[in-house]
Amino acid sequence: MTRHDGRAVEQLRPVKIETNYLMHPEGSVLIQVGDTKVICTATVDDRVPGFLRGQGKGWITAEYSMLPRATAERTQRDASRGKINGRTMEIQRLIGRALRAIVDLEALGEKTIWIDCDVIQADGGTRTASITGAFVALTQALAKIHENKPFAKFPIVDYLAATSVGFVDEIGAVLDLNYIEDSAAAVDMNLVMTGSGRFVEIQGTGEEATFSRSELNELLDLGENGIRELIEIQKTALGEAAALVRDAKEEA
Amino acid sequence: MTRHDGRAVEQLRPVKIETNYLMHPEGSVLIQVGDTKVICTATVDDRVPGFLRGQGKGWITAEYSMLPRATAERTQRDASRGKINGRTMEIQRLIGRALRAIVDLEALGEKTIWIDCDVIQADGGTRTASITGAFVALTQALAKIHENKPFAKFPIVDYLAATSVGFVDEIGAVLDLNYIEDSAAAVDMNLVMTGSGRFVEIQGTGEEATFSRSELNELLDLGENGIRELIEIQKTALGEAAALVRDAKEEA
Amino acid sequence: MTRHDGRAVEQLRPVKIETNYLMHPEGSVLIQVGDTKVICTATVDDRVPGFLRGQGKGWITAEYSMLPRATAERTQRDASRGKINGRTMEIQRLIGRALRAIVDLEALGEKTIWIDCDVIQADGGTRTASITGAFVALTQALAKIHENKPFAKFPIVDYLAATSVGFVDEIGAVLDLNYIEDSAAAVDMNLVMTGSGRFVEIQGTGEEATFSRSELNELLDLGENGIRELIEIQKTALGEAAALVRDAKEEA
Amino acid sequence: MTRHDGRAVEQLRPVKIETNYLMHPEGSVLIQVGDTKVICTATVDDRVPGFLRGQGKGWITAEYSMLPRATAERTQRDASRGKINGRTMEIQRLIGRALRAIVDLEALGEKTIWIDCDVIQADGGTRTASITGAFVALTQALAKIHENKPFAKFPIVDYLAATSVGFVDEIGAVLDLNYIEDSAAAVDMNLVMTGSGRFVEIQGTGEEATFSRSELNELLDLGENGIRELIEIQKTALGEAAALVRDAKEEA
Amino acid sequence: MTRHDGRAVEQLRPVKIETNYLMHPEGSVLIQVGDTKVICTATVDDRVPGFLRGQGKGWITAEYSMLPRATAERTQRDASRGKINGRTMEIQRLIGRALRAIVDLEALGEKTIWIDCDVIQADGGTRTASITGAFVALTQALAKIHENKPFAKFPIVDYLAATSVGFVDEIGAVLDLNYIEDSAAAVDMNLVMTGSGRFVEIQGTGEEATFSRSELNELLDLGENGIRELIEIQKTALGEAAALVRDAKEEA
Amino acid sequence: MTRHDGRAVEQLRPVKIETNYLMHPEGSVLIQVGDTKVICTATVDDRVPGFLRGQGKGWITAEYSMLPRATAERTQRDASRGKINGRTMEIQRLIGRALRAIVDLEALGEKTIWIDCDVIQADGGTRTASITGAFVALTQALAKIHENKPFAKFPIVDYLAATSVGFVDEIGAVLDLNYIEDSAAAVDMNLVMTGSGRFVEIQGTGEEATFSRSELNELLDLGENGIRELIEIQKTALGEAAALVRDAKEEA
Repeated sequence: MTRHDGRAVEQLRPVKIETNYLMHPEGSVLIQVGDTKVICTATVDDRVPGFLRGQGKGWITAEYSMLPRATAERTQRDASRGKINGRTMEIQRLIGRALRAIVDLEALGEKTIWIDCDVIQADGGTRTASITGAFVALTQALAKIHENKPFAKFPIVDYLAATSVGFVDEIGAVLDLNYIEDSAAAVDMNLVMTGSGRFVEIQGTGEEATFSRSELNELLDLGENGIRELIEIQKTALGEAAALVRDAKEEA
Repeated sequence: MTRHDGRAVEQLRPVKIETNYLMHPEGSVLIQVGDTKVICTATVDDRVPGFLRGQGKGWITAEYSMLPRATAERTQRDASRGKINGRTMEIQRLIGRALRAIVDLEALGEKTIWIDCDVIQADGGTRTASITGAFVALTQALAKIHENKPFAKFPIVDYLAATSVGFVDEIGAVLDLNYIEDSAAAVDMNLVMTGSGRFVEIQGTGEEATFSRSELNELLDLGENGIRELIEIQKTALGEAAALVRDAKEEA
Repeated sequence: MTRHDGRAVEQLRPVKIETNYLMHPEGSVLIQVGDTKVICTATVDDRVPGFLRGQGKGWITAEYSMLPRATAERTQRDASRGKINGRTMEIQRLIGRALRAIVDLEALGEKTIWIDCDVIQADGGTRTASITGAFVALTQALAKIHENKPFAKFPIVDYLAATSVGFVDEIGAVLDLNYIEDSAAAVDMNLVMTGSGRFVEIQGTGEEATFSRSELNELLDLGENGIRELIEIQKTALGEAAALVRDAKEEA
Repeated sequence: MTRHDGRAVEQLRPVKIETNYLMHPEGSVLIQVGDTKVICTATVDDRVPGFLRGQGKGWITAEYSMLPRATAERTQRDASRGKINGRTMEIQRLIGRALRAIVDLEALGEKTIWIDCDVIQADGGTRTASITGAFVALTQALAKIHENKPFAKFPIVDYLAATSVGFVDEIGAVLDLNYIEDSAAAVDMNLVMTGSGRFVEIQGTGEEATFSRSELNELLDLGENGIRELIEIQKTALGEAAALVRDAKEEA
Repeated sequence: MTRHDGRAVEQLRPVKIETNYLMHPEGSVLIQVGDTKVICTATVDDRVPGFLRGQGKGWITAEYSMLPRATAERTQRDASRGKINGRTMEIQRLIGRALRAIVDLEALGEKTIWIDCDVIQADGGTRTASITGAFVALTQALAKIHENKPFAKFPIVDYLAATSVGFVDEIGAVLDLNYIEDSAAAVDMNLVMTGSGRFVEIQGTGEEATFSRSELNELLDLGENGIRELIEIQKTALGEAAALVRDAKEEA
Repeated sequence: MTRHDGRAVEQLRPVKIETNYLMHPEGSVLIQVGDTKVICTATVDDRVPGFLRGQGKGWITAEYSMLPRATAERTQRDASRGKINGRTMEIQRLIGRALRAIVDLEALGEKTIWIDCDVIQADGGTRTASITGAFVALTQALAKIHENKPFAKFPIVDYLAATSVGFVDEIGAVLDLNYIEDSAAAVDMNLVMTGSGRFVEIQGTGEEATFSRSELNELLDLGENGIRELIEIQKTALGEAAALVRDAKEEA
């Protein structure tokens, strides 16, 4: 039995990252992972949140949203409901936390970078696509600052990308689940990893199901390979700015 | 003195309407009016609001939003603030009302069409671009229904487009203001008109300024011409579906 | 066929403006336009909103509300629903914008004037009655300041009043629609004009209907006459304070 | 030392109750107690809240609000703040509870009466004026129903009025405190009583102060007399409808 | 006929006050009154609310909540509903006001004391148990401050406790109603009194019922005795800190 | 270097589970893990959420909250802020999802079990203590139902417990972090596992840090042992009800 879209179990969907997608933001990309499309922007703000004031450190914060018709059924806007739902909260906290792991916040200095991930079209894996795209938008934004007024040390010290893995009935462990696979998966795991192959975040969940230690290892193997490929695509998208990350990483 | 982007006073910005822009919605377009870009979708829902139940009539309702970095400065999300701001409310009420003027709600039958206009990039005229684009998405969606299960009468009975006109210092009356012009305009007017050249909505406002009856007439002349051009662009974008509107209009 | 309340098509309802209606506010009126009754107050606040701080300019802001039983059916309070509805937002933005058009904000200096319009009884035209009444309350409040501590230049530089016009089936164009007419009108237009006969705001709307250029002109003619009459009534209500506006207007 | 407005300690302010104050509600009054002015309306709704459905009983519920400039300083609207403040909640719960004490809810049948008390001008005692006025509006509304479709038993079985008493420095126990007295009172007590001289509600509060049992008795004596006078004023205001209450009371 | 739990009409339920119940707060108790259990904490904050800033005075403010399953039926959390209900508001305002009556706010100095009363298990009388417990937590917290950095004058100048009394059918006037009695009571009265036997708050309410002056006196007699007993239990719970209150009271 | 509370790196804090802690809920425990104390209750509701209606399946949903002074600094209540914060949302979604993994929702039938976890005192690990305690409360509640009206199959098909592991500077990998350790941990991982040693949830996060595959394995080894111990403690707490789970597990 093969995956319904014909992919091999260890195969990513086609990934495309279009940089400088919007005219206003300091950094912006349109990332497409199969049919999932997310606009990721990075905004530089010269203030920091209250808890960091006067410490010479910066902060990365993220917001995530879907257009109502990013999905097959129309989703009510959070703004209309008057509150942000739990899933959205979880995802935007994850994106911010993940990016902070590869940013040297002291090197960034007293700045807040606002990351906005807006899903234009959803077909599974929107949170991992958001992280992978947001990394590029963030790097772009900081490279633009660096050009005018160089950082003593470029604050992005490693690459960062994310993907999902999971167990799908009658197929087994697969990489980069699309919506149909995700809905059918007994176990679903999101992995965020660095260019050095280290974990930033593992979120593995059995929805009315469980998994063993060896099944966990099978998923991790698949995910590590997928993330390595995604990082190559990010490097290409970043062009010259890739050198800034490479140098900061070597120095770190 | 000429307009800062070199346009003649009676000249629209370049307009591009990309149909079937998203995979999920029944109708969807990306409309670009100069640097203003809006995704407009139309969703068909087989229920009607409470006040219409059992009357055999349908309804059109609209929501409007901007991505936080559609603008030069990042705008806080309504969802984060926990409420919809007044400007958003005004715009989404306008979009819905405008579209209802050219839809035969009895012919539509007991259906609600949800229009979502999400501004990806803003450079002035987002509400008029939303109306112009939403008309196309709506027509697409109803044409799709019509194909499978023809309406007794196609419910869209005329074309509909919108543009802005205004008075800009040292230039005078101009058509289709971009953001810089809009910020500097003493008088700003939004016009929504039909393919038959009738008004659906006139909203003229002096912001700390006023205008005379003859100045009003000058603005209306400019606007009428602009809308005629926009409707030609809509016809091209709609392709075959344009015939449905033409026929329904003749019949009406 | 005649109007159901016996008025001529170009006839206003009886208008009564009672000044100094409440003991606490700097300016307050009860305006009655037929059976529509609105309490309008003006409050002087020595601070300005953040975006104006340090610019030596003032601001006018407005809030509008209805008592629950101002209407035939009880309306739920916005406070109970926990949010302000779209119609209320639109109206209060309109009132503030309209008044700002005849106030010299530099002459006002760093002050905010809060306008509160509370509809006690509604029979159509509550927003236009609010503007007409609020102009008087505002002028009263500024005249009171002026008495104690004269402005270098009195900040109200022209009169301002508002009314509605529209097309009613079987009657045609009429002035100053009451609730029954308003509910039945195919086209409804609110006009705000100055004592000099210039437009501040035109909001014309076809509700599931449209109107031609010549129909527009017919409505504007009716409205201009109605507003001229309303301004005479304001002058009488203002008494001595009317001279302040007249002088400031001549000087402007 | 005498009260600053020259009243004797046991003297009410002038009370005026204007019935049929508004055109739409089933019952409406403007009550004035000195400079305190409240519009009270009663709305009849043929549904009951969920917890009473199918029990053949009715309900009385109340809402209370102040116009922003009812007070010397402008008060922010609850609607703008997005929530009802604690004082408002307390008062509206009190009004509803007080009225339910003299209504035979079985005799009322499956109806909800909405009481709305909107303070137009505040000078102390707004909650007690609301209760005294709401009683009249409620009786009016039920008398109107009774005229068309008589109740088997008229549901209002006694009179109801409210006033405040308190201790003011250098004066001692006083009846019907106005705003200046209320602000200066060490102890403040609201009393709600029936035409039979029975208590419905006693709310006595020392604000950063306390009171003895004999001081309590002094306050109760003053209050009982004041309420007796208020009920006479209600009877006059009600005119013929007073007979309905008198008969229902005798029967009870 | 006797009370369903076998108590005499003038008998309190067993009361237990466990001090230093939690490790973090400056003062904390678990108070049990029969089956009603409330955790009361006192938090010292070195800021004061805006309206007191710079006056050298402190403030006491209170919050009250129930665990969802403190009650027989699960109660929805206020946080899930997005707003605080009216009953909660009333209770937390009462707790704060009651405590302020026995605190010398000048002696407290520029501090806010936050009182949190969280009902773990409810069986009637949760608001009065909260006041009785909160007094002990507050005294503990201030005694702890006093130990390190003595107040010029200890700010708690008298004892404070609360209980309920009411009329229960077929039994008559009873002290300290449990849930079953409270549900069945025609008249319900909460009393807050000081160690000197003075009233701080009387809240007597007939729910669809009324009461006479002599019935009121009967309730007050019962309540006074109950509160005297509660204050003895507080003294025992406070141990050495009781001396601080005694001395401050004598001095006052 | 040793842990600041003297524990070995693989040592849990003392765990105590007090069952039947409250009188009203179907199941309730007080769980103490060191100084962390959580009240967990289980409420049985005979309705299911809309998306499950008519499918013969049940649901488990969870809410989580902290008392304001569960923490060293007072935390503002979600109810006062008018919305639930992101961390609370994440935790309550996790608790519900975890419990659903060991419940046979078909065997449960059309019921919703509400789990409430209220943290009385916090010293790290509140979410894992909540899961461990909630499992016992849930089992109690279902055992109580089973006693009166036996399930065809007891719906809890395995044990479930949770703990945290992490990397603390100068110490390395440790089990069951208290608050001080948690604040200092570079990597923090929550594990939820079944009695069969299978994973339900892995949430590993580097806060401004990363971890390698072998470090991950070290953490998992520690966690597995800790969870095995916790499940023994649950068995003891459950007493006879433990047999129900054991039998259902064997059967599964």
